[in-house]
Amino acid sequence: MTNPKSKATRVENELANTLWERGFAVVRGPSSGGGVRRRYQPDLVAIKGGKVLVIEIKSRSGNSPIYLDSEQVLGLSEFARRAGGLALIAVRLRGGEWRFHTIDELEPTGASFRLSEPLSGMRIRDLEEAIERKDRDLLSYLKG
Amino acid sequence: MTNPKSKATRVENELANTLWERGFAVVRGPSSGGGVRRRYQPDLVAIKGGKVLVIEIKSRSGNSPIYLDSEQVLGLSEFARRAGGLALIAVRLRGGEWRFHTIDELEPTGASFRLSEPLSGMRIRDLEEAIERKDRDLLSYLKG
Repeated sequence: MTNPKSKATRVENELANTLWERGFAVVRGPSSGGGVRRRYQPDLVAIKGGKVLVIEIKSRSGNSPIYLDSEQVLGLSEFARRAGGLALIAVRLRGGEWRFHTIDELEPTGASFRLSEPLSGMRIRDLEEAIERKDRDLLSYLKG
Repeated sequence: MTNPKSKATRVENELANTLWERGFAVVRGPSSGGGVRRRYQPDLVAIKGGKVLVIEIKSRSGNSPIYLDSEQVLGLSEFARRAGGLALIAVRLRGGEWRFHTIDELEPTGASFRLSEPLSGMRIRDLEEAIERKDRDLLSYLKG
């Protein structure tokens, strides 16, 4: 379980199962890039009643910044635009709690994008409530 | 390329690329069941502006019936219900054309479901037009 790929798969499945139990339809992107270089593939897509969440997953034990490749952020953003959905970075904290950040919290830093405070960000319940209340600021992303 | 798994992957990528080129956000489900037994994973999910298509893929050279496992059909149906989307069987014909069938065209036959006429069914343009016109019959499935 120290293999980074199997760890990533385990963490993806953990969030996928959590969202499934909360009533979302969830699909995990293929782990390898085989044959899909022409299309960006997110870690997870979670959908409930036409509301689409497009999710990249990161793990963090503390509050140090997370850096994301520009290509990954642009892919995530384009995927969410096509889907009419919300692009999110899901951060798994040590112990298994999750924090969700919208893509507009990222700061460009030349070749990459920085998420400065992984510990801030929505909890899973905040996200669900925002979707259910149709939170204006958050859900201006969601056309459905 | 006679390995059934690599053929399935190739056919999935073919449809995924076609739908991506037509403006859909497309995600392919993981090919192996590793760790995901608790959740059904469709072959493809394609989304455009909050409209969600949940797709199982089959290949057929002629017009002989296609049989689908009950478990697969129930999984597909439940996934689409959660997502507020449309459950489809996509049939790749010899030569590369596609036909799309809604799940209510399937007939139960005891342990499985039968799609009697793979050659009937919507072409890819019919499907796009139905989504764009918000076709009433078809899109009563789509809540978005």
